[in-house]
Amino acid sequence: MQIQSLIADRTHRMSVNAIREILKVVAQPGMISLAGGIPAPESFPMDIIHNLSREVIETYGSSAFQYGPTEGFTPLRKQLADHLNKKKGFQVQPEQVFVSSGSQGALDAVGKTLISKNDKIGVESPTYLGAIQAFDPYEPDYITLDTDGDGLIPESLETVLRKTRLKFIYLVPTFQNPTGRTLTRERREHIAEILVRYDTLLIEDDPYSDLRYDGGPLKPIKTMAPDHVLYIGTLSKVFAPGLRVGFYVPPALLKDWLVIIKQGVDLHTSTFNQALAAEYLSRNHLEHHLPHIIALYKPKRDAMLKALANYFPAKFTCSRPQGGMFVWVEGPRGYNMEALYQRAVKENVAFVPGKYFFADSQNGMETMRLNFSMADEATIDHAICVLSRLL
Amino acid sequence: MQIQSLIADRTHRMSVNAIREILKVVAQPGMISLAGGIPAPESFPMDIIHNLSREVIETYGSSAFQYGPTEGFTPLRKQLADHLNKKKGFQVQPEQVFVSSGSQGALDAVGKTLISKNDKIGVESPTYLGAIQAFDPYEPDYITLDTDGDGLIPESLETVLRKTRLKFIYLVPTFQNPTGRTLTRERREHIAEILVRYDTLLIEDDPYSDLRYDGGPLKPIKTMAPDHVLYIGTLSKVFAPGLRVGFYVPPALLKDWLVIIKQGVDLHTSTFNQALAAEYLSRNHLEHHLPHIIALYKPKRDAMLKALANYFPAKFTCSRPQGGMFVWVEGPRGYNMEALYQRAVKENVAFVPGKYFFADSQNGMETMRLNFSMADEATIDHAICVLSRLL
Repeated sequence: MQIQSLIADRTHRMSVNAIREILKVVAQPGMISLAGGIPAPESFPMDIIHNLSREVIETYGSSAFQYGPTEGFTPLRKQLADHLNKKKGFQVQPEQVFVSSGSQGALDAVGKTLISKNDKIGVESPTYLGAIQAFDPYEPDYITLDTDGDGLIPESLETVLRKTRLKFIYLVPTFQNPTGRTLTRERREHIAEILVRYDTLLIEDDPYSDLRYDGGPLKPIKTMAPDHVLYIGTLSKVFAPGLRVGFYVPPALLKDWLVIIKQGVDLHTSTFNQALAAEYLSRNHLEHHLPHIIALYKPKRDAMLKALANYFPAKFTCSRPQGGMFVWVEGPRGYNMEALYQRAVKENVAFVPGKYFFADSQNGMETMRLNFSMADEATIDHAICVLSRLL
Repeated sequence: MQIQSLIADRTHRMSVNAIREILKVVAQPGMISLAGGIPAPESFPMDIIHNLSREVIETYGSSAFQYGPTEGFTPLRKQLADHLNKKKGFQVQPEQVFVSSGSQGALDAVGKTLISKNDKIGVESPTYLGAIQAFDPYEPDYITLDTDGDGLIPESLETVLRKTRLKFIYLVPTFQNPTGRTLTRERREHIAEILVRYDTLLIEDDPYSDLRYDGGPLKPIKTMAPDHVLYIGTLSKVFAPGLRVGFYVPPALLKDWLVIIKQGVDLHTSTFNQALAAEYLSRNHLEHHLPHIIALYKPKRDAMLKALANYFPAKFTCSRPQGGMFVWVEGPRGYNMEALYQRAVKENVAFVPGKYFFADSQNGMETMRLNFSMADEATIDHAICVLSRLL
């Protein structure tokens, strides 16, 4: 069989996720990784998890292992609604919360349900690569929106919407991947107002907001324009990513379609893992465990920012994230971070060249994403020192 | 926002899975369900599962809860390859076996990777509804292939291939859902030969073959034409469906594309559940537990066939499955099983009208699918008696 005639038109567009290829390099022994975007394994509540497995089996019996509703496991939907209402300023019922197979599953359902070929999607520049990979098979065109140190510039969004109908806008408003930047409260309110005025949908992806090390919490844009925002959350960063439990709160008019689409993709998310998540939340484990995760990551963030200030030349500017897992570095115009990456790997230090996070492939050559969740503080200091020597 | 302008072209084609709607009716108290296609909860190895959770945590520690490779959890791929080689006549390496989020996840990946709009897909008539639901969003045209009591008629396939290029053929060769029918060895060999001669791809979906109550095992078509068959299996029917662990063995030239597509859909299948499945297989639990499942289902199958012979008029013919979960009944031409369904539900007996399993919606009005895995023998006898009274 000829592969070219066998695969679909959409598949010809696809390519290997460059970051996952980089992560294979990172797996080599002795490599210091500032490349991943994955939680530190010591952040997982391993002692809790063993008891939870037993408690789930006692509480739910065989029903935790049976087929379940596509919408999600009922006790988990209830716990998620409670969590969103108590901690994030939501006012939702369990029936408004839907479970997905990780936040990636929600992004895929959004793309599959909404995007026709050549629909226009507004994205930050740079933006989260996994979202692009979820949307790409449905062949949209990307419209890049201008950002600064406080995230998306609302006026840039309005300028686009004045001329162009967007199918939706995709944002990570808090501790964005890859930049670590956060939209201010004023900008959130301004964007919510623009969404309503232009009757436009926002996909608000919020994986990191629980990992806040400084400053006060900011309400999701969803709470400011509930009918115009589809909010996506995940337990991957505060429980365990290997369980693949994410969730979303859509505008009411989209919920049935997203469920129908998910039926064809995976019938439903693992019942057992949803039950584990329900018990994790209902027994208040998140509330007790989250301070431990924050206490683990904050010193790593501090170590990285300090090392960057100590070692990197002033013409390389870096973001100062109040949470999350990433610092973003911009070198002088014309600098080639890809070439630096090749040299750094030979010295056993890995990071992700920033160009992979731009929807238009010629941008971001002078940028890099540095992750601080995996290495310890001394290793972070050493790795940044090595990079500064190679700059 | 207007829903009609918001959803994608493909979404306008979609509709609620009628069977899942029927299953909501079935959930009403007092209803006897011959409608589902789900394993009996007492078939789950609950005693084993609790120990497995502990053993997985001891064996794999935090790595069972971390992000993992899209291809699948390495220990599980090894166990699946061993299982296929020992029990199904395969000769595969672990690197040739890929994990999916249930077999539904494999069907979605196949559709997404291969189907361009208006590509032609060959399907049995009737066929498995979940496959249609996985393929529909990619907007193929279905070509129905003729079947009889032994499944697909090879000459019907060749007649189609002589005139028409098919993107692929989709079959459930063993204890098919919905008919319970099984392709004979001679037909498997004939179909394998046709696939090679016409250089055409087969998607061989094999969820039920372990549930054999009579007769000897039949080798998958994959073993007869390995470069022309993508084989899909699942642990949903022999371990627990709520874990959502399926797998597939593709022709070599497709494997990279299927993995790239899955990255965008869900990154990977639950690591914890894959680790549970790996330990379930490596500790020989499947081998010891499967006889219990068969001992549970065989008397139910026998009870249903006996009741049908006792109560149903001779003009209603039924399949005599050697395994699986379903019996298929065909009434006289012009008979309306949908109307029978409406009357039966009022008498607290549910089944699935067969018309839902036909890709062309005007077929199969006189047919029904009866499931025997959920109810006990006496209840099956009573339910068939009630149906016969209403016929």
